[in-house]
This record gives sequence, structure tokens and C-alpha cells, in this order.
Amino acid sequence: MSVTVAIDCMGGDHGPAVTVPAALDFLGVHPGVSVILVGLEDELKARVGEGAGKFGSRLRIHHASQVVGMDEPPKSAIRAKKDSSMRVAINLVKEGEAQAAVSAGNTGALMAIARFVLKTLPGIDRPAICFALPTIRGRTYALDLGANVDCTAQHLLQFGIMGAMLASAVDHLERPTVGLLNVGEEEIKGNGLTKQAAELLAASSLNYYGYVEGDGIYQGTTDVVVADGFVGNVALKTSEGLAKMLATFLREEFTRGPFSKLAALLALPVLRRFKHRADPGRYNGAVLLGLRGIVVKSHGSAAAYAFERAIARAADAAENRLIERIADKMSARAGTDTNTDTGAIADGDNA
Amino acid sequence: MSVTVAIDCMGGDHGPAVTVPAALDFLGVHPGVSVILVGLEDELKARVGEGAGKFGSRLRIHHASQVVGMDEPPKSAIRAKKDSSMRVAINLVKEGEAQAAVSAGNTGALMAIARFVLKTLPGIDRPAICFALPTIRGRTYALDLGANVDCTAQHLLQFGIMGAMLASAVDHLERPTVGLLNVGEEEIKGNGLTKQAAELLAASSLNYYGYVEGDGIYQGTTDVVVADGFVGNVALKTSEGLAKMLATFLREEFTRGPFSKLAALLALPVLRRFKHRADPGRYNGAVLLGLRGIVVKSHGSAAAYAFERAIARAADAAENRLIERIADKMSARAGTDTNTDTGAIADGDNA
Repeated sequence: MSVTVAIDCMGGDHGPAVTVPAALDFLGVHPGVSVILVGLEDELKARVGEGAGKFGSRLRIHHASQVVGMDEPPKSAIRAKKDSSMRVAINLVKEGEAQAAVSAGNTGALMAIARFVLKTLPGIDRPAICFALPTIRGRTYALDLGANVDCTAQHLLQFGIMGAMLASAVDHLERPTVGLLNVGEEEIKGNGLTKQAAELLAASSLNYYGYVEGDGIYQGTTDVVVADGFVGNVALKTSEGLAKMLATFLREEFTRGPFSKLAALLALPVLRRFKHRADPGRYNGAVLLGLRGIVVKSHGSAAAYAFERAIARAADAAENRLIERIADKMSARAGTDTNTDTGAIADGDNA
Repeated sequence: MSVTVAIDCMGGDHGPAVTVPAALDFLGVHPGVSVILVGLEDELKARVGEGAGKFGSRLRIHHASQVVGMDEPPKSAIRAKKDSSMRVAINLVKEGEAQAAVSAGNTGALMAIARFVLKTLPGIDRPAICFALPTIRGRTYALDLGANVDCTAQHLLQFGIMGAMLASAVDHLERPTVGLLNVGEEEIKGNGLTKQAAELLAASSLNYYGYVEGDGIYQGTTDVVVADGFVGNVALKTSEGLAKMLATFLREEFTRGPFSKLAALLALPVLRRFKHRADPGRYNGAVLLGLRGIVVKSHGSAAAYAFERAIARAADAAENRLIERIADKMSARAGTDTNTDTGAIADGDNA
């Protein structure tokens, strides 16, 4: 299947200075994929420069006259910015011109616009943000990381299904294991929400593992970890904070006096490999799951190589038919389970 | 004020093999403090050996015939183990023989016994687990880390008061800043619980900072960070998992081939300093706050130097009158605020 990715080139802290070089690099290493650069045409043309020619019809520019600000409230982005690069990129997915959209713009606005334009899939009440975290063994798909701060057990079950389908699609796992984030692994541990969600997950057709504690995420205990968006967001941001602190400590110790600096020089290749392995940029690209189209959110401050990872993640999900997999799983459930929120299905039917 | 610490010597993964040497080391460097070693008398006497003599009356052994298992349910520990080393150590605090108790035994049983024997302070509904986490700037007191997985806004306010009093007592901060853990710093972010708790904290006499995101914990944005026990526990354990993963990556990279091993050898002093700075053992000792006595929980797998840190934390809190500070703050509130849970006060009055 030939895939096209629509790129919101104006979003993020650096805009086209990062997004355009990333797109050109991506095209160079992914010959089967096309991209549409969305944003202020003149600026994008200037950035692309002579690079445009060699990719032929695989590289297109699509003008959009507005830009959503990094702090702009979702409502204002939806109402007042109908020709924003973010909105136009998502429109291209809806119209079938592209199979996925990527943006480094603000998460709230991106989620709101994506939900408004694409609608949720039948049987999905709430879209969720899913991120592939590095683990000692490989990677774990964690969701929700902040889209929903007041989930029901039914939402957590849906997150489990969406996360498992993402792991199936992208990592080609036949029956990915799904864990539920909790304060202990014993059955009696947890709050009301986790206990209810555990029952639903255990009764589903998923390969449900049981409860996973916070340290299980990075141990790679399961392929997918499900949590309420409040808890997931705190876990993700706490991790970012800790990683930053440890990096600061390491840098400070290696620059403390001439002997340490000499040691740092000699250890440089080792430290570079470590940095590369632990680098969050390599894992860049959170997937907004549960929509009728693929939308990937890059970190706002991503450098070009990291933004390129987000484009690759979007293309990968599209090539592996992520949306169809989730839709199939949900319609199989609809036949056996009457518990899904019909309001959300009706909402989806408006699309 | 002369302080005595009662030590549950049988708890933890290693029991007296760790707790007794830690106590002896502690006595050597804290001449003003006494300890009571609680546990199987014969075993403790054998472990102490000739070390006993030089500390005179500062070192006592108190026999307790039972041991609470590391996986033993709290109910069984309370009902069937009335002469456990854990229970007897806490009894010594209640009877005024000691001003603080320390245990590396299981958290659930320790919290249940401490609450049953000591009772909560007037105005405190639920005790909380508070841990001093390292930050780029110093340290942050985070609570609750798992005692309560379904908090109300009123509980979070009480946690704020207890955490602030701990920071005041131990770090001698006059007006420690208090942050509320949330998914964003803007006022509109969060769930119902955080919004209600934010109102209560802002209206209190605390030095309330506002919302803090997960990465704010390790940035040291505030002196105290308050969270529901479910969220706090996940944040703490996720941190442990990430730190372990990064340590594994670092070790693997420094042992990958002869050049890396040579670099590791040269960088050894630097890596040791880094390890020391990031070592969770240095921060060992979670305080169970809100009780009518000081109880400190050591990590179950703590080595002797780390267990010694937990003893020092307990002595420090006692010397700085932690319980009186919290009680004073709560009774000052009781004069101005009728919102406290009278059930808990009644419960406390039974003590």
C-alpha cells in the first residue's frame, strides 16, 4: 500500500526550520512513502529549495494561511483557525489525500481538531494518547498519557484494545500482552476504577496480563500498559524530569575538574552510545488513537532527527493498517458485547 | 532534647544482618541519640557482640518473640502478631520509651499497626507516606506515595499541611512551598479532585505555589508536592523503574568491548560520584505522617548504610518536634476551620 503523510510544517517550537529538513531526510530513506508539506507556501518553498526536484511527485506543498499558537486554547484553534496548517493537514487525512498527519503543535488543539474533523471510531468513546516507551527488553506502548483525566473502566478497556492493535500493527505482535497500571500486583490492590477495569480486561479477548506497577513500565513487563490519562501523564512527565536530572548529574560529574574532563574525553564514545540509547528523541511520536484516521503528535521541541521519527511512526502505522485493525476489533466486540457507549457510535456516524 | 529510636531489627529482606550493623554505625556518629533494638533477643545479642559495651545505656535490646512476614496481610499482622518486633517497636513510641520507630518491614502491615497503636492526630483523617526525593536543587517532600488510593480534596489539604511541617522541621524552612501534582500548570487543567484541592490549598495558611507537573518534582519546583496516593505511588515506582533501566544501559555500554572497559576504569571515580549522587539509598526512609508518633519506613532491600539513613531521618524528625508541629498547625486550623473530619478527631481521641 502506498502511503502519503500530511505534515503540519508550522507547528512546534521551531516550525519549518525543523519540520522541512526532517521531511526531506525522511523521503530520502523511505522511497515508498510520499509527503505533503502543509503551511505558508512561500516559506515552505524557500525551505525546500533545490531539494524538491529529486523526489518528484512524492513531495508536494499544500498552502495553509494560518498557524495555531503553541499556547492557543483548543476552542479558539477550532473556531478561528479553519485554515491553519494543523487543521488542513488533518483535513487531508479525512479527504483521503493522506493516510496520516503529523504535527509538533500544541497537544490540546491537535486532539480537539483531530476529534472534530475525523470523529472517533465506532465503539470508542474517547481518543487516547499513546507513546512507545523504551524498556530494558524493547518497548512498551503506554496510554492514555493525558487526553482523558477522568476515565471510566469502559474507557480503560477501550484503551487496552487500541494499544494492543497499535502493538500488533507496528511491532507485528500477534497477541500483545496488556497490563493495567496499579499500586501493586496483588488482586486486592488498587482503587475502584482499576478493580472494575481489571474485570473488563480479564473478560475481553485481549491477552490480559494483570496489574503492572510503575517500575513494570520500564522493565517491559507487558507490551501495552493502560492507565487513566491523569496517572499516565504524571508517570510520563515524572520520567522526563528524572531523566533530565540524571543527565545533569552525569554532565556535572564529568566536568568537575581536569581529571574528570579527561575521563569524559576518553569515555566519549561510550557516553554517546548511552545517550543515543536513552535519547527520548528516538521514541518521538505519540499516536492519537481511537480516531478515524492516523494522527501523530511530535514533541514540540523535537529536533529534525526526532521529528523524522514521528513521520516514520505515522507512515508505519498507516502501512500496517492501524485504523482498520482497531475498527475490526471494535466491530467484533459489538457483536458480543452490548456495553459500548452508543452515544460515541452515534457521534462517529456523523463523520 | 535527648531522643531514643526504637528499631524493628527483624524487618526487611535482610533482617538483623543489616539493621544491627546500621544501628551500631548510627550510634557511632550520633552521640546524642539512643537506640532500642527490638527483636529476637538471642539473635540480636549475638549480632551486637562486643559492640554493645562502648555505647553504654545508649544501646538497649528489647525482646520481641514474633516477626511480621514481608508478604503478611496487615490484618493478620495486627491480630496474630501482638509480640512482633514491628508492633513492639511502635508500642515503645506510644509508651514514650522511644520518640520514633524505624522498620524495613512490609509497608501495609507497618501502616496498619502504626495507625492502630498510635492513632491519627486530631484533624487528620488519613496518615500518608512521605518521601524526600532528590532534585536538581536539593530535595522535595512528596506525599502520599501509596497509603491512600482514593483521596478527597480535604485529604490532599491535610497532606499539604503534614508535608510542609516535615519540611519545616527537618530542613528548617520557615514557609516551605507546596505544589499540587497535576497534568498541567494552567488553572483549567486537571480533574475534579485537583481543582477542589487547589481551592482548599489556596485558601489555607500554607505557602501554596499552585499546580506542579510530573517533571516539576525532580526540578525541585516546590519544597513539597502533594498527590493522591495512587498517582504518587505510580510516580515513585515509575521513577525507580526508569533509574534502574538507565543504570543498566550505562553499565552495558561501559562493558561493551575492551575499549569501553578501559574507559570505565578511567572514569571510575567520576561514575562513583554520579552513582553516589543518584543513589536512592541516600534518600532512604519514608515518613508515615499524621500519626501521634514518628514512624519511618526503610526500603525492604536497604543495605546497612541506607538503613542508617532511615534511622537518622527518624531521629532528626523527633529532635525537631515533627509531631508537635503538625499538631499545632492542625489545632490552629481547628479554630478557624470547621471543615475537618470530626470522625477522625474522635478516632484520635481514643488514643
